[in-house]
Amino acid sequence: REQRAKEFLGVLKELQPEILVSFWNTPTVLAAAADDVPSLKYVCHLAGTVRSLVDREIVEAGVLVSNWGTVISRTIAEASLMQILNCLRLTTSVTLEMHVRKGWKIGGREQRSLFGRTVGLHGLGPIAQDLIPLLRPFGCQISAYSPHCPDEIFEKFGVTKVDDLRTLYASNDIISIHTGNTPENFHIVNADLLAAMADGAALVNTARGEIIDTDALVAELKTGRILASLDVYEEEPLAADSPLRGLENCQLLPHAAGPTLDRRVDCGTLAVDNIERYLRGEEVLFPVSLRKYDTAT
Amino acid sequence: REQRAKEFLGVLKELQPEILVSFWNTPTVLAAAADDVPSLKYVCHLAGTVRSLVDREIVEAGVLVSNWGTVISRTIAEASLMQILNCLRLTTSVTLEMHVRKGWKIGGREQRSLFGRTVGLHGLGPIAQDLIPLLRPFGCQISAYSPHCPDEIFEKFGVTKVDDLRTLYASNDIISIHTGNTPENFHIVNADLLAAMADGAALVNTARGEIIDTDALVAELKTGRILASLDVYEEEPLAADSPLRGLENCQLLPHAAGPTLDRRVDCGTLAVDNIERYLRGEEVLFPVSLRKYDTAT
Repeated sequence: REQRAKEFLGVLKELQPEILVSFWNTPTVLAAAADDVPSLKYVCHLAGTVRSLVDREIVEAGVLVSNWGTVISRTIAEASLMQILNCLRLTTSVTLEMHVRKGWKIGGREQRSLFGRTVGLHGLGPIAQDLIPLLRPFGCQISAYSPHCPDEIFEKFGVTKVDDLRTLYASNDIISIHTGNTPENFHIVNADLLAAMADGAALVNTARGEIIDTDALVAELKTGRILASLDVYEEEPLAADSPLRGLENCQLLPHAAGPTLDRRVDCGTLAVDNIERYLRGEEVLFPVSLRKYDTAT
Repeated sequence: REQRAKEFLGVLKELQPEILVSFWNTPTVLAAAADDVPSLKYVCHLAGTVRSLVDREIVEAGVLVSNWGTVISRTIAEASLMQILNCLRLTTSVTLEMHVRKGWKIGGREQRSLFGRTVGLHGLGPIAQDLIPLLRPFGCQISAYSPHCPDEIFEKFGVTKVDDLRTLYASNDIISIHTGNTPENFHIVNADLLAAMADGAALVNTARGEIIDTDALVAELKTGRILASLDVYEEEPLAADSPLRGLENCQLLPHAAGPTLDRRVDCGTLAVDNIERYLRGEEVLFPVSLRKYDTAT
């Protein structure tokens, strides 16, 4: 990676571009570019995290940087909805029963509907906000825990504010995690919170694996008391011998909630829009300030 | 079943009820009840098909019969949405990869999003109508083939009318089947229609197995060209050695789309509503006329 970044610096020095459009595999723009590539004014990055793309000195030197902002949020919200439905309909058990055990109806737990259920959003950022309209046709009662989110956002989305995380986990049929991967959130979903969930409640995580204490979740899932669907893990790829494998009340996805390949066109549309804004001297969408640079996950 | 029906006639003769509330396992009300249970005025049946519940003579004799009408349609529409999402996200392959093969990302086909996709509804009855609002937040372009459906319904739901079934199958990313199990519809989804589907298109069936020529579908699925999710089959339970088992581009569900147990409360609410309507001398909801009796599937 370091070698590629050095080669890339050479390319930038030679081309002296004003605008750089970058994606996941673009090499890092090294701090030296601040001096060696004086032409560079705008880095239009079409992914989330910027830290691995540009050294902090580039942002300090006043180069404008933007990321994909919220354009991919809806595909992750879509995955969350699918995961919620799959928890309620016991899709993992059903799939193993139909395709592996060659059976028919599964015994034990009943399949359930999303209509009229209570949904608790752990975090009320862009992905949670994009999930809300997908839940609305089901008449769900939606509440959220998001202490730093302004009251206006709760009001705008018609979401009940819950001040206490334990209450959120204890009082909903479905919990969907959309909070940030901050140090305070490390293992915030612990054995105590999981034990507070109602019998048969479902936990969906499309955020980051570190938010959940995996050992505690495995222990709770093994009792069969709750359901879960995970797209993200503390260790990725998930170890072949992870105790999550084979737990039929837990849907497992390989960190693939979004953006799906077919919707990366939305990133391209954003890039065109932002380059036009930049060229017209307007504010670009989703600028990455130094503060955002430092706090992004 | 015949023995139970005879015993049940004895009970009805003894009780002489005015109203009978019935569900799937209620014994058949035999024709003789028309004479032997003159008190019986209203059969409030909380399922779909009435033919196995009351002999035709009961309806001929003027006993009012109603069924669950459209109150359970939305749970089946919900399953259809889940199945569409699971086709696009390759959930069956993913589940087998994560839980059985202990792997991670699956090779080959890419996961896709529902946002902006074209959806073709084969049939525009109550379940299709309930699916439309669930698709709306995804900005799908929705068209339908339903030759007997009035134009006003297409207009009301903002659905494009397609006059030719082959065109419907050829021009959509997703086909969802919601047509009736009539003799004309037997194997209407044949090799020709399946071959007309676009590469990577998804076929979802929550209606009846007889609508699809299963052998033709198996052949098309084996090429890997299309995706499918089936809740219903020509033979139920599905045979253990069905060639559908193990086809990873085909999600298999055990005829469980709806109503889920938790939403049967909606049937109870309907029953209370209809009994109140009957007692007030008003029209009940979802009456089963002789014509409906004869054409129901």
